[in-house]
Amino acid sequence: MLASGLSQMHGQVLPAFLLCSTLLVIKMYVVAIITGQVRLRKKAFANPEDALRRGGLQYHRTDPDVERCLRAHRNDMETIYPFLFLGLVYSFMGPSPFVAHIHFLLVFVGRILHTVAYLGKLRAPTRSLSYTLAQLPCFSMALQIIWEVAHHL
Amino acid sequence: MLASGLSQMHGQVLPAFLLCSTLLVIKMYVVAIITGQVRLRKKAFANPEDALRRGGLQYHRTDPDVERCLRAHRNDMETIYPFLFLGLVYSFMGPSPFVAHIHFLLVFVGRILHTVAYLGKLRAPTRSLSYTLAQLPCFSMALQIIWEVAHHL
Amino acid sequence: MLASGLSQMHGQVLPAFLLCSTLLVIKMYVVAIITGQVRLRKKAFANPEDALRRGGLQYHRTDPDVERCLRAHRNDMETIYPFLFLGLVYSFMGPSPFVAHIHFLLVFVGRILHTVAYLGKLRAPTRSLSYTLAQLPCFSMALQIIWEVAHHL
Repeated sequence: MLASGLSQMHGQVLPAFLLCSTLLVIKMYVVAIITGQVRLRKKAFANPEDALRRGGLQYHRTDPDVERCLRAHRNDMETIYPFLFLGLVYSFMGPSPFVAHIHFLLVFVGRILHTVAYLGKLRAPTRSLSYTLAQLPCFSMALQIIWEVAHHL
Repeated sequence: MLASGLSQMHGQVLPAFLLCSTLLVIKMYVVAIITGQVRLRKKAFANPEDALRRGGLQYHRTDPDVERCLRAHRNDMETIYPFLFLGLVYSFMGPSPFVAHIHFLLVFVGRILHTVAYLGKLRAPTRSLSYTLAQLPCFSMALQIIWEVAHHL
Repeated sequence: MLASGLSQMHGQVLPAFLLCSTLLVIKMYVVAIITGQVRLRKKAFANPEDALRRGGLQYHRTDPDVERCLRAHRNDMETIYPFLFLGLVYSFMGPSPFVAHIHFLLVFVGRILHTVAYLGKLRAPTRSLSYTLAQLPCFSMALQIIWEVAHHL
């Protein structure tokens, strides 16, 4: 109902945002699942109670691949969560659908590539470039929100 | 006003979501307060300036109980923040109030149990099961949003 | 359009919230940029692939200043993200513009001071007081949301 009602009001902007943002949330859930799988495979658990259940306290330890998953997930939290907020506000500001779609697509592609580059240990600076690719439209949306809002204060 | 206006438009869905989500945010604030208390009790500070104020640089150190609080809080950020977004969008999609209430209740109960299991060091797999209990309705809401939105692209 | 439409409906509350919240998101982006700069200056990289590109695997290491940036950023995630949610809901609840502005201003000032105190290594308890300054209005908004919502269940 929201989607149908608002798609009439706002062209295709809000549905496109909700699609990209929700797919990125699911992508984050997948990173969490991968982290759990790597913990099981490498036998490296953050909590003694988990290690005890999986063979003994010697598996209460860190592991480079687990740490890598955690860093990828943390970077998602630093970038995708602000996008959920900025993109939602921006979608209601009546942007050009074409320009809005480019913004959302860059964030989406950038963050997918970031995860692939991080977990796949791709050569630098692939990961950094993906990060920047996704951050530029977020920064652009933030500036447009401030610009719009500044006229109403 | 939002709550009153929207409760008429959307039955009891939005108020139920706002109640569960805001209580979970307060729950996260409580975890932060507990972390601070554990730091004081165990004398384990992340910053030299805090340690200096509390007895000396030897207290600039890590502690297993503090680390545990930080992991619980981080897991909240990985799961509750996406719920704030997904649940809000889902509430406006006109779901069945009964089905929506079950979704919100599972997230709420799952995340409260998760914190209790984490900070209480309950035996595995209590914490993992609580995590899964809360993630399943979140995943369900994400899929319903994508399904709804896919019809408007 | 959202800003213009809603500023008429809700006085100056929503624009004021969107200004404070978006500026705080940009502030978080700045912390991320600073973290990257400190990594380059101190030659301390979290990933081997980054270290290899910047001189060798010996620079795959931790650094106290980098850790400090990461803690500042994490604390932002623990506090500013909930504000994005609570402040948005609160703005639609029809609060007194004067009271709402005080809430937003305290969060804004508190979180700017927090970052300055953290990255500037200011003497304790400057950082903790800034944290509390920003958390009190957030807690107040959470309680008001629960109060309002409790009347519609």
